Amino acid sequence: MPNRSVFFVSDGTGIAAETFGNSILAQFDIRPHRVRLPFIDSVEKAVRAVERINEIGQAEGKPPVVFVTLVNPDVLDIIKSARALVFDMFNSFVQPLEMAFGMKSNHRIGRFSDAAYSPQYHNRIDAINFSLLHDDGQSTQNLIDAEVILVGVSRCGKTPTSLYLAMQHGVRAANYPLIPDDFERMRLPDSLTGLRHKLFGLTIAPDRLSEIRSERRPDSRYAALDNCRYEVSEAEKLMRREGIRWLSSTHKSIEEIATTILQQIRPDRLEY
Amino acid sequence: MPNRSVFFVSDGTGIAAETFGNSILAQFDIRPHRVRLPFIDSVEKAVRAVERINEIGQAEGKPPVVFVTLVNPDVLDIIKSARALVFDMFNSFVQPLEMAFGMKSNHRIGRFSDAAYSPQYHNRIDAINFSLLHDDGQSTQNLIDAEVILVGVSRCGKTPTSLYLAMQHGVRAANYPLIPDDFERMRLPDSLTGLRHKLFGLTIAPDRLSEIRSERRPDSRYAALDNCRYEVSEAEKLMRREGIRWLSSTHKSIEEIATTILQQIRPDRLEY
Repeated sequence: MPNRSVFFVSDGTGIAAETFGNSILAQFDIRPHRVRLPFIDSVEKAVRAVERINEIGQAEGKPPVVFVTLVNPDVLDIIKSARALVFDMFNSFVQPLEMAFGMKSNHRIGRFSDAAYSPQYHNRIDAINFSLLHDDGQSTQNLIDAEVILVGVSRCGKTPTSLYLAMQHGVRAANYPLIPDDFERMRLPDSLTGLRHKLFGLTIAPDRLSEIRSERRPDSRYAALDNCRYEVSEAEKLMRREGIRWLSSTHKSIEEIATTILQQIRPDRLEY
Repeated sequence: MPNRSVFFVSDGTGIAAETFGNSILAQFDIRPHRVRLPFIDSVEKAVRAVERINEIGQAEGKPPVVFVTLVNPDVLDIIKSARALVFDMFNSFVQPLEMAFGMKSNHRIGRFSDAAYSPQYHNRIDAINFSLLHDDGQSTQNLIDAEVILVGVSRCGKTPTSLYLAMQHGVRAANYPLIPDDFERMRLPDSLTGLRHKLFGLTIAPDRLSEIRSERRPDSRYAALDNCRYEVSEAEKLMRREGIRWLSSTHKSIEEIATTILQQIRPDRLEY
């Protein structure tokens, strides 16, 4: 079904509509065209959006699917008038919650409105800066301020996981490579002494590691399968010996790795 | 209403449940405790989750709110048996879509299952690596491969926006600082010659810039308000002269900045 379009219409960035809509679409073996229509916060913009939805529906001969997160009822009414299958994601849930909470919703537009001034946002930006400064063992200053320090062999997924933890969850995540020097000494790098409780290990299947390293440095000793086998085995030995919790990144996305790490380092409630 | 808990229960990472649930909760003036229960993919785990939900509801004297994205109907049934207000986010939308698409959903668990092997995921990881390598003008190699190059004065938001574009949207986003040398010459840095069509500018209110810089280097010339005024005014002059599109990051989150840039650089359909 290639000729079917899906729209994400929002008065904000549309990220909530898109994330949730995509997780629903993943339940179907289709690859529809997707169109993001963010910042639809006025009647005029809504009218133009409907025109666009209708045109595409006509061209495709099938009504598009429209995932909507809109707070303003006038804007919502216009979008609902499109010749399309419109899923009103907010109101399906907001009204029952008004009953449960015993209060009216405040019809605030956009998840991220004024986000740029909130302490939570500030914390996320700080965490991104921290994680960048402490990527790949670049700086050992203030490592004590890290909430978690990822360790593992080069190219096992430490960097993108650290950045994701910072960006999505506001976690100050440093990362530190384990290198052949450490294996020869069979000891953690000195900079990590006294920080063992903050360490979390990543490991990876040697053949996958060899693939990833080969993309960057083909035909190198660094990428050779036997070297990858050696490094991974030594790194696991070291982590086991030092009592470091670890997981394998081989079959996991950074979202899955980050969620698992969060369960370990913040096992209790999330405070926003 | 501090003593009310909200749970996000999922068979995957729970990111879809959490993103969407939070955007709905933002409609209410409450700050509930939030608990993430990811990877609930078996009857046993579901039973334990229900026990936890019920315990907390009893302690608080109010039924918790539970946002659920669960595919397995047995697991879902158990969660629905909790003494809580359960919002089944999938089935509210999946069933009507089955009708519309004329096909059954495949009951695949977790948005990110097997994501680690998809070309889209590979592209995102590549984009993160690219954006890191090309952060702050660090490397000018392969700048031609950038989908967008953010320019602007130091600390106006280029780095987190580039990383967000890469991580969330798989955009190869480089960033390049505009510095006093460029203002004296009133020309773009030489490395950007021929790449003007890829440039996107960020600017910022001078007083906000001074605040941000003061956090890093208090009482410095770099952070002084008059210097920030000078740099911002010169950078805007340069961008205007060179015909570079730009926006102000002052009141915007990185999500909002990224969404606006995406509309410019990928005005058409999203292809996943």
